[in-house]
Amino acid sequence: MRVNIQTVIDALISPVARLEQTVDTLKFGHPDTEVTGIVTAFMPTQFVIEQAISLGANLIIAHEAPFFSHHDDTSKLKDDPVYEDKRRLLESSGIALFRFHDYLHRYTPDGVMEGLIQTLDWMPYVQEHHPAYSIVHIPTETVFNIAEHVKKRLGISFVRAHGDRELLCSKIGLLAGYRGGSQNALPLFEREQLDLIIYGEGPEWETPEYVRDAVYQGRHKALIVLGHAESEEPGMEFLANKLRNIYPEIPLHYVKERPVFQVL
Amino acid sequence: MRVNIQTVIDALISPVARLEQTVDTLKFGHPDTEVTGIVTAFMPTQFVIEQAISLGANLIIAHEAPFFSHHDDTSKLKDDPVYEDKRRLLESSGIALFRFHDYLHRYTPDGVMEGLIQTLDWMPYVQEHHPAYSIVHIPTETVFNIAEHVKKRLGISFVRAHGDRELLCSKIGLLAGYRGGSQNALPLFEREQLDLIIYGEGPEWETPEYVRDAVYQGRHKALIVLGHAESEEPGMEFLANKLRNIYPEIPLHYVKERPVFQVL
Repeated sequence: MRVNIQTVIDALISPVARLEQTVDTLKFGHPDTEVTGIVTAFMPTQFVIEQAISLGANLIIAHEAPFFSHHDDTSKLKDDPVYEDKRRLLESSGIALFRFHDYLHRYTPDGVMEGLIQTLDWMPYVQEHHPAYSIVHIPTETVFNIAEHVKKRLGISFVRAHGDRELLCSKIGLLAGYRGGSQNALPLFEREQLDLIIYGEGPEWETPEYVRDAVYQGRHKALIVLGHAESEEPGMEFLANKLRNIYPEIPLHYVKERPVFQVL
Repeated sequence: MRVNIQTVIDALISPVARLEQTVDTLKFGHPDTEVTGIVTAFMPTQFVIEQAISLGANLIIAHEAPFFSHHDDTSKLKDDPVYEDKRRLLESSGIALFRFHDYLHRYTPDGVMEGLIQTLDWMPYVQEHHPAYSIVHIPTETVFNIAEHVKKRLGISFVRAHGDRELLCSKIGLLAGYRGGSQNALPLFEREQLDLIIYGEGPEWETPEYVRDAVYQGRHKALIVLGHAESEEPGMEFLANKLRNIYPEIPLHYVKERPVFQVL
């Protein structure tokens, strides 16, 4: 059966009511091209695009935008050689690039969060899903051991943390992506009586400084920061598995990047 | 000579034309109180406030806001015990808290940047100051050795980096605080022909991903991320020195916090 790019896009967005405004658009390629293979990835990096081409895939489904801007603002990148090389590769290869961000976050539960929790092996401990966060109630462990578990399951070499590494935690708030700011994260500590928040990325002067004051006041709180990509990549692997079930005849690959940061 | 709080504030903002809109306001305390001692700090944490009180200082000059929000939005913190304890301490102690953010960044050169460059011992290498960044041209060194130098001078235990740690660099773009985003940082690589950008904080999907693609394309680029506080604290130490010269009779202290993150 012939499957074209628009068919896949329609399937991806079908679980969610149509969004009036969204960044989830086809950035490159044509909707009526027949799909020969699909790559899912967190970020459509130069490496991911080259991998997709060499795998014979002609559709990349990426969570983030290709040109280092959530809203595809390339106004300051005109004549920039990094941008130009990447754009030319996308254009000349004829590969399609669909961004799958807003709709995936609006799955019930959030598809990115579901991937993260599955990868962390915490599905049995989910207490509640909310649109912007989930609560898990794990068997009591220290912050240090939770960090070790998270690093092992996500395949990463470090996390950033605040608080006593020996603090015993069981009630955890999880926020994937850039949801670590005070608007999303702070009210959870009190409302949900959390020991620990684990988030992807957020402003450093907000939640980390709240946790610093809370700890200094003698409160039972801690924070682990995963990194943006680290918290959302599992969602794109999860998506690849989902698509494999829908389109068993189409070659499907999840391409994982190396962590963008090393610690020096 | 009696010096009151408003006198100090007037001195602080005098090098800059009056701003119509600014977060630099007196958050606690009264303008006509006589100053008994001054503490400068990056973040007015619970620890910093207690230190100020025990030092007998009644004016804290802090770069960031006390309640985990750039615009003092405390709407979601009502009845939050961390917020309430901190607010009560500020109120009951009668200590004055002045935020000194926008004006300091508008000094010529930016007072925060000047503090950072002095602390890094790179004053002789400054090539150009711009409002949002400075260019330094240091004797050629590897990324690894530059990171070691930066960590030693700032008294921090880690930085996050992307790129080959053996890459030789001499032309560096410096951006303090939350200026690491693509709007500020990306155009510099090409326009200023930089080897390396060092910034405080910025969105992880912007500049780090640009550098990732640039490196993958074989370009001579690297990135070091200091952390927000790590990049701006020296500016508040620099300010304490400045104030010591203006008010030699007032006890002046710079209170340094521990880094908010540890690596696990």
